[in-house]
Amino acid sequence: MEEYSVIGKRLPRVDGVVKITGSATYADDLILPGMLHGKLLRSPYAHAKILNIDTSKAERLPGVRAVITGKDFPGIQVGFMRKYADRAPIAIDKVRYCGEVVAAVAATEPDIAEEALDLIDVEYEELPVVINAEQALAEGAPLIHDYAKNNIAVSSQWEYGDVDKAFKECDYVREQRLFTQRVTIGFIEPHAALASVDASGRVLFQGSKQSPYITWRHLCWGLDIPLNKVRLVNPYVGGAFSGKHDAHDLDFCAVKLAQKTRKPVKIVLTQDEVIGFYRQRHAKDIWLKLGVKKDGTLVAGDCKLIADGGAYLGVGPLNIFLFGLFLNIPFRLPNLRYESHRVYTNTPICGAVRGQAQVIACYAFSTMMDIVANDMGMDVADMMLKNTLKPGEVTPNGVQITTIGLEEGIKKVMQGIGWKKQKAKKVPNRGLGIACGSQISGLRMGGHFASSALVKLSEDGTVNLVHGGTEIGQGCDTVFSQMVAEVLGIPLEDVIVGAEDGYDTFFDSGMFGDRCTVWTGNAVVAAAEDVRSQLADIAAEMLGVKPEELVFRDRKVYVKDDPEKSLPFLRVVRNAQYGKGNCIYGHGSWAPPGVEVVDFEKGDASNLTPSYSFVAQAVEIEVDPETGKVKMLNSVTGDDSGQPMNELLVDGQIEGGAVHMIGQGLFEQSLWDEKGRPLNPSFMDYKMPTAMDSPKFTNYHIITNDPRGPFGAKGAGETATTTMMAAITNAVYDAVGVRITKVPMTAEKIYMALKDKKGKR
Amino acid sequence: MEEYSVIGKRLPRVDGVVKITGSATYADDLILPGMLHGKLLRSPYAHAKILNIDTSKAERLPGVRAVITGKDFPGIQVGFMRKYADRAPIAIDKVRYCGEVVAAVAATEPDIAEEALDLIDVEYEELPVVINAEQALAEGAPLIHDYAKNNIAVSSQWEYGDVDKAFKECDYVREQRLFTQRVTIGFIEPHAALASVDASGRVLFQGSKQSPYITWRHLCWGLDIPLNKVRLVNPYVGGAFSGKHDAHDLDFCAVKLAQKTRKPVKIVLTQDEVIGFYRQRHAKDIWLKLGVKKDGTLVAGDCKLIADGGAYLGVGPLNIFLFGLFLNIPFRLPNLRYESHRVYTNTPICGAVRGQAQVIACYAFSTMMDIVANDMGMDVADMMLKNTLKPGEVTPNGVQITTIGLEEGIKKVMQGIGWKKQKAKKVPNRGLGIACGSQISGLRMGGHFASSALVKLSEDGTVNLVHGGTEIGQGCDTVFSQMVAEVLGIPLEDVIVGAEDGYDTFFDSGMFGDRCTVWTGNAVVAAAEDVRSQLADIAAEMLGVKPEELVFRDRKVYVKDDPEKSLPFLRVVRNAQYGKGNCIYGHGSWAPPGVEVVDFEKGDASNLTPSYSFVAQAVEIEVDPETGKVKMLNSVTGDDSGQPMNELLVDGQIEGGAVHMIGQGLFEQSLWDEKGRPLNPSFMDYKMPTAMDSPKFTNYHIITNDPRGPFGAKGAGETATTTMMAAITNAVYDAVGVRITKVPMTAEKIYMALKDKKGKR
Repeated sequence: MEEYSVIGKRLPRVDGVVKITGSATYADDLILPGMLHGKLLRSPYAHAKILNIDTSKAERLPGVRAVITGKDFPGIQVGFMRKYADRAPIAIDKVRYCGEVVAAVAATEPDIAEEALDLIDVEYEELPVVINAEQALAEGAPLIHDYAKNNIAVSSQWEYGDVDKAFKECDYVREQRLFTQRVTIGFIEPHAALASVDASGRVLFQGSKQSPYITWRHLCWGLDIPLNKVRLVNPYVGGAFSGKHDAHDLDFCAVKLAQKTRKPVKIVLTQDEVIGFYRQRHAKDIWLKLGVKKDGTLVAGDCKLIADGGAYLGVGPLNIFLFGLFLNIPFRLPNLRYESHRVYTNTPICGAVRGQAQVIACYAFSTMMDIVANDMGMDVADMMLKNTLKPGEVTPNGVQITTIGLEEGIKKVMQGIGWKKQKAKKVPNRGLGIACGSQISGLRMGGHFASSALVKLSEDGTVNLVHGGTEIGQGCDTVFSQMVAEVLGIPLEDVIVGAEDGYDTFFDSGMFGDRCTVWTGNAVVAAAEDVRSQLADIAAEMLGVKPEELVFRDRKVYVKDDPEKSLPFLRVVRNAQYGKGNCIYGHGSWAPPGVEVVDFEKGDASNLTPSYSFVAQAVEIEVDPETGKVKMLNSVTGDDSGQPMNELLVDGQIEGGAVHMIGQGLFEQSLWDEKGRPLNPSFMDYKMPTAMDSPKFTNYHIITNDPRGPFGAKGAGETATTTMMAAITNAVYDAVGVRITKVPMTAEKIYMALKDKKGKR
Repeated sequence: MEEYSVIGKRLPRVDGVVKITGSATYADDLILPGMLHGKLLRSPYAHAKILNIDTSKAERLPGVRAVITGKDFPGIQVGFMRKYADRAPIAIDKVRYCGEVVAAVAATEPDIAEEALDLIDVEYEELPVVINAEQALAEGAPLIHDYAKNNIAVSSQWEYGDVDKAFKECDYVREQRLFTQRVTIGFIEPHAALASVDASGRVLFQGSKQSPYITWRHLCWGLDIPLNKVRLVNPYVGGAFSGKHDAHDLDFCAVKLAQKTRKPVKIVLTQDEVIGFYRQRHAKDIWLKLGVKKDGTLVAGDCKLIADGGAYLGVGPLNIFLFGLFLNIPFRLPNLRYESHRVYTNTPICGAVRGQAQVIACYAFSTMMDIVANDMGMDVADMMLKNTLKPGEVTPNGVQITTIGLEEGIKKVMQGIGWKKQKAKKVPNRGLGIACGSQISGLRMGGHFASSALVKLSEDGTVNLVHGGTEIGQGCDTVFSQMVAEVLGIPLEDVIVGAEDGYDTFFDSGMFGDRCTVWTGNAVVAAAEDVRSQLADIAAEMLGVKPEELVFRDRKVYVKDDPEKSLPFLRVVRNAQYGKGNCIYGHGSWAPPGVEVVDFEKGDASNLTPSYSFVAQAVEIEVDPETGKVKMLNSVTGDDSGQPMNELLVDGQIEGGAVHMIGQGLFEQSLWDEKGRPLNPSFMDYKMPTAMDSPKFTNYHIITNDPRGPFGAKGAGETATTTMMAAITNAVYDAVGVRITKVPMTAEKIYMALKDKKGKR
């Protein structure tokens, strides 16, 4: 018999039918009695003092029910942790990016609210604008926040080992500057919020949120409402990719307008607002120096990072910390110096975007290894194999590698893509590139960080699961249902996941950093085991054995060593519920052991995450020498996410993440004019990859069975975001011999590089 | 220091502000995207065969989305227990009362649905009608259900002691026939249901329900849907009084129409539909014979009951069982014979109505005691005092009296109303009447019968409580919040009750029979104690003591014998949640011990309920001799509901229940014409009591501290429904010397009786 009956299977999503048929309800679908419609007024200037706001004309417009400005949020500063709170919900005295919200309106109809926005007179005094880190750091640059000298918002730096000494001992040292651009996130459902407040002040907030807990805490903290008086309910969510943890302007305005009008207020953004004014990936200017022994062993690294973070901090401190951390993973680097600064600019806030800073760190590192290997005439794949971390290894900065299947992963992708064969017999303009990456399995931040779940068993043997996570498309509802089904020995269809509900339901710090499978998953398993243990006591009494002798499988409970001795699952359930009159609930919560919180401005990562996932990826591409256009042909990944809970879903994540990064690698870029006004804030002007841009995928699952995750799982989902860009960069070099160091590698850029190269020859 | 800091206080309702200001959301307020409106087509005949239903014209009406008939519910029979299921959700081949639903429509607008009803052609074949029990039992009467001989739906009979022998030993024996009428319930919010079904078949049902669990099970059972696929959500409920356990026609039609249209369907009844066609109190024809010793000691009783139950069973078996049971309580009656039959008639279904059958049983018994006492020249109050059951007593039919404060209650009301003084010095046309009654504290029926609750503690020390009960106006959310606050030593305002939610939330067989304080309350206390115990472990470690030494009070945790040694509650909470990374939830479930279910057709009540509440009530009235009109002057009650959780709320229940029964005692009556068509189905034609009809109330709380309830509580709420009618009857006799044996005691009836009496003199 197989070890698992449900876990690890390629099962279709439990939310598939509802989403495919259009019967899933999203935030904008919601209607509440007496509901008003809200709209946000945005600054046309990227940097300006607000001298005065006159709302009187707007207030007099028939149908307008309330107008609010920054004055409605006196003294409130929010941020992802209290020590990093640098932002009012909407601007008060000054705007710092074009599109920053300065006022909001609630009216009976959306078009009345829209009209009212035009009637609000805002008197601005324009200030000089800096739209990128270079401008922001230049001498004499205008200060965006008075307290931030040189516009440096936060820094993170450390050194492990003796870096200078180590470089001296190297056989080869190479340094390189790499640049990555600003990109938008591109989820399909725009931000939406629907707030209602009853006469006793209780708030019901229904929105499109990735982590209801985060929004819940921010609203309570900012508006000084007790936690038990705010209820977060998530309808279905149309993608998030780290962009829906917060949208403070929207969230706070919806609640404040509801408080003022005593009516429900719904605000739904347009896709253009989202693309133009909300979270983006940091642009990064990376200087990286690597030193190796002649056999390719990595010895020392030095990195300086300047990250353009936009007008406020967001999760910036975490971002630059993670960038530095992932210079140490997945390759052994005993000596590393890291200095990073996140810089304020007059652009929208940068934050986490699918795969976070790991994406850029791993891009830089795998690109650099390819450069070094090529310089040295080595096969980069061999060099990677030589330097991968080993199971049980602890890095100088405290990273504990519980399990790692990267070596096997590299070998699989080499085999899968035909690495040695193709390298030996090169086809013109075709190239292979390889890269390796890693991801955390969630992380511990300030505040409450555990996950929790509740399993309810009904008299007919069916189960409802409520968990604190959020199904944002990643498939967690399916995976958690599988976990419950496996623990109780029932089929997947007997488990249904209930609604996310931050009020009477469940703590869970949120869906980020590949956190959900391990953290929420462990809580789900604990809840299911709690139910099983209650049933086992009853079944054991019925069968005259000890509870620990029982196995739950195939809707049966049987004695392990005497499988003929068994009971139908349903009989045990009925005996439990009718016979004893019990209510069968199981509760579980989980957080990794330890209470220390990581300091993001220093390098130690001992307590960051329970485990790390790994990936190797090789791609085959073809460059059109006439145009410089890259065509993706094949992608092979070797993915170690412990024991995959559902390979179909992990494949979906690998391919989705990889394709997402084809966009950043080849053509995406958010642009501003010199005044800081967005130039391409719409899907008409901003190209994202489609299925037409995808290669053929082959994914190998390297099963490592991590001891800390449920059923051996590690975080799954974002690994392949870390490798695609470097794999393409390296493949372009392999194909046509040009090294592009600034993404996106547009056809134009490659064409120009080819031209340059030809000119030089 | 007082024993309790929150329990027992006269605290205002936690839902008061929201309800008073109109910000509470009721079922009819709800809107879902794409929602359709449903209407029900009702039979104009009280008894007829359905020969054919042609829906084609209705289906063609623009805006109509679906039409359903009984054929959409093939083979489905529902009822309050499976063995008593005698009813299809809507009529199939035959209608059995006027107003029975034969078809339903869903359309884009309510008036289109209404118009569509007119386009449905139903071909009926009229059958002869019986509109009361007498007609139904008459020889040759038409059979309403083929299998029910003489239209007898169910019978319940038993004998304890040797009744014939006991009567022979009595000094005085008297028999009397009493009649009680059909009345409607009179809740202010009509029945409403909003059903939606997603593409995977999951049902969300939001309605005005008293016991979501009951509706949940009925829908799953009838429509063959697994229990985990139906979610019941209750918005605020505008009264129920036992009338909102089920409304099968409405509930099933809403879900079926939603299944057919794949759109949400809302059906809201008119108040006229509710009054004309939904649950009513059984009309009862009671023959009661009592035998006493010359000192007034009760020796033997014999009772025959015919109950007119309408066209289907409903909770009829329970009703006639409870009537018989309450001939044994609250007075000691060692020998009792009981024979009862519930009869089908062509009228709407009778069920439980505020106070259930206890109301009528206690009315009959206290009236009879007054008759006997008057016959014997005794003071009925003294006779009642002599016969009350004692704490610890077990009656012949197995009733265990855990606590009883009735003797003290009788003494208090005698004192409060000035019984002996006024009896001695009679004022013309004024009279005093006294009556005693009792209620159960919930009861065990078939199926799952436990209660459950969940307490969630947030980082700021505030609490959310979710319980399986329903706030239907009785104040349970307030009482449960008090319980949680008391257990955790925090103020009431720190506790908020979450939404009722039968899906991802909570088992609880429902709100009936004064069940909630004891059953759900015990579960709530267990949940709060679970939280306290988790906190106590942490606080004990912080204080270096044992957990059992700690007291939680006034937002502090302190050592019992050394109160200086203390911690703020919030510090313990934060240490628990941040320090250990825990999620603090407490879970509790409760059912009384034992697994046997009562057989309602036999008399043993050993396992029925954990405890009994008691009440004595005296009223002072004045009869206008010119018109016969009764004016209520004073009411004094002595109520034993154990330890009252909140005297303000118990007062509200006492007064509400008592005033409710002034209606049935003095003027309410549902009427039909000879064809079974309702004559007064509207609040224009059906008079219910208002504040203008109320006496001045004085309520004494007799505190008995029951061992089985939370904090010594017993069921509270319906006691005074059991006494008002007999008290008035007895007072009328005391005032003007006429004994009215048929309620309502309208002015006309009393006037005629006075005229008769004068004629006789």
